[in-house]
Amino acid sequence: MAKSTSLQQLAIGIDIGGTNTKFGIVDRSGNILFSSEISSRTHEEVEDFIDELYEHLYEMIQTAGGSGRIRGIGVGAPNGNFYSGTVEYAPNLPWKGVIPFAEMVQNKFHLPVGLTNDANAAAIGEMMYGAAKGMKDFIMITLGTGVGSGIVANGSLIYGHDGFAGELGHTIIIPNGRLHEGTGKHGCLESYASATGVRLTAIEMLSKTKEPSLLQNIPLDEIDSKKVHDAAKAGDKLAKEVFDFTGQVLGLALANFVMFSSPEAIILFGGLTKAGDFILTPTRENMEANLIKVFRNKVKILVSHLREADAAILGASALVWEMKDA
Amino acid sequence: MAKSTSLQQLAIGIDIGGTNTKFGIVDRSGNILFSSEISSRTHEEVEDFIDELYEHLYEMIQTAGGSGRIRGIGVGAPNGNFYSGTVEYAPNLPWKGVIPFAEMVQNKFHLPVGLTNDANAAAIGEMMYGAAKGMKDFIMITLGTGVGSGIVANGSLIYGHDGFAGELGHTIIIPNGRLHEGTGKHGCLESYASATGVRLTAIEMLSKTKEPSLLQNIPLDEIDSKKVHDAAKAGDKLAKEVFDFTGQVLGLALANFVMFSSPEAIILFGGLTKAGDFILTPTRENMEANLIKVFRNKVKILVSHLREADAAILGASALVWEMKDA
Repeated sequence: MAKSTSLQQLAIGIDIGGTNTKFGIVDRSGNILFSSEISSRTHEEVEDFIDELYEHLYEMIQTAGGSGRIRGIGVGAPNGNFYSGTVEYAPNLPWKGVIPFAEMVQNKFHLPVGLTNDANAAAIGEMMYGAAKGMKDFIMITLGTGVGSGIVANGSLIYGHDGFAGELGHTIIIPNGRLHEGTGKHGCLESYASATGVRLTAIEMLSKTKEPSLLQNIPLDEIDSKKVHDAAKAGDKLAKEVFDFTGQVLGLALANFVMFSSPEAIILFGGLTKAGDFILTPTRENMEANLIKVFRNKVKILVSHLREADAAILGASALVWEMKDA
Repeated sequence: MAKSTSLQQLAIGIDIGGTNTKFGIVDRSGNILFSSEISSRTHEEVEDFIDELYEHLYEMIQTAGGSGRIRGIGVGAPNGNFYSGTVEYAPNLPWKGVIPFAEMVQNKFHLPVGLTNDANAAAIGEMMYGAAKGMKDFIMITLGTGVGSGIVANGSLIYGHDGFAGELGHTIIIPNGRLHEGTGKHGCLESYASATGVRLTAIEMLSKTKEPSLLQNIPLDEIDSKKVHDAAKAGDKLAKEVFDFTGQVLGLALANFVMFSSPEAIILFGGLTKAGDFILTPTRENMEANLIKVFRNKVKILVSHLREADAAILGASALVWEMKDA
């Protein structure tokens, strides 16, 4: 495909989350020209999922001036592998095994495709357009349905020898702790410091106390992290304790990550950060309490200031500008 | 100092361990021409320690052809900072606070000095001369009096934004676990997977059982990791359980490190590795058991094949060949 480079100033970003997939067309300065989303959960076959993505994006591409204006597609996906372009055994997605996702998208769209872990994509987005601008050492943690992470050291994303580095949500923080249904492991960070984790903590705490709580008015299967946050805002003691406990586990985990790569900052992103100081204060306190002296009072915990929907698409699209042969 | 570069083919390596300090003169191919050691524990003032180092090294330098043949000095030290050349709040050394060690050595020897964390130095040594030759992603863990670590990703040592990255011995593996007397923290890796940790585990297990054990013939304050190893070799059940438990904690920690940087291999080094399969087998098993699927059966656990005394000096000396202005 011979294309005029001057026209190829747009990139497609696709972010596959545990619940929804966000996608859009982005210019080099980080302006999102068009965007939309579909469910990540309703397609049993990955081919059908890609077909639906194509339908939506085809229209956007035409409106943006045709595929000649698009330089490539960047995809962020859970368990996405930068080297192979595959999505492998993603615990939070309906498609099992090893999926050659980048190749499938490339065959469908006839455009170059770069793929990485969704949280790695978010980290690149923060480095190019967000809270990590100018930083050479930081860790990005996404606190959504699950917990993802992207680690930047010496100015480069750490991919590891096989492209799978940065699965901090699966590190074991509480040995023999809460079961993670997707992996069968006990006590990983994701079992506690995700929207799912907050929900489970609230249910556990409610079952163990007779103390009155606003959360007792909600049927157990309707409790979610937003309702816990609403209760905390209304002054509910138990709801606050849910966030205190979540911050205790997250803070301990962050201390361990700091003692690994000594970042300038940890950038938090995703639904749980909406709980603001309810979760940030205990997280900071517990991180500091678990750090040895050389690391104390040095590491910033920042909340991403990119809009959530934007950040996912921006991060994925940023992969395009990093592609060598795009 | 105008020196003929062709003559400066030797480097001094100084490795400051929690117990002993090893030092020597090394050529560029990694041959140790002269070496010796002194205690790290008997000098209350760091100045006296450097004076004794100088006395020993002065003789070696003269024998090697004078300081004109020495290109520089590389120092590996616990809590050593690559950027500032300081040793800061090292829990296992007698000198407290922030010590401008590189500057002090430079003033004493009138030679360029590079300094880093002792385990970072060991990692550079393994990458130049040892088990990690040719690897771009690996983690070096030293299991000695304490637990040190050096992390290499994308072919470079991770120093972090402040030069202190890679303090994996202080990551919390068992929340609210055993007290680390040097840091006041509970449940860090070093409290379990060090020579000190094995000793404490043996004493704890002996106090809780009435089962016969060879270790019961040894006064409690004389039990050390070597005696536990000897007992395990003689078939002692309790001694084997001490290593099983140590491998359980170490294996869990290694799994977490793998999910951080996805290394090709973890290189183990130091006194505890002498226990061989008594510690390696449970470590491997527990690492694998705690890894999510994408990481399983991929990561090698290797034992450094460099002689212990050599590796420390080689690693520290290797810093010299990496110095810019040496």
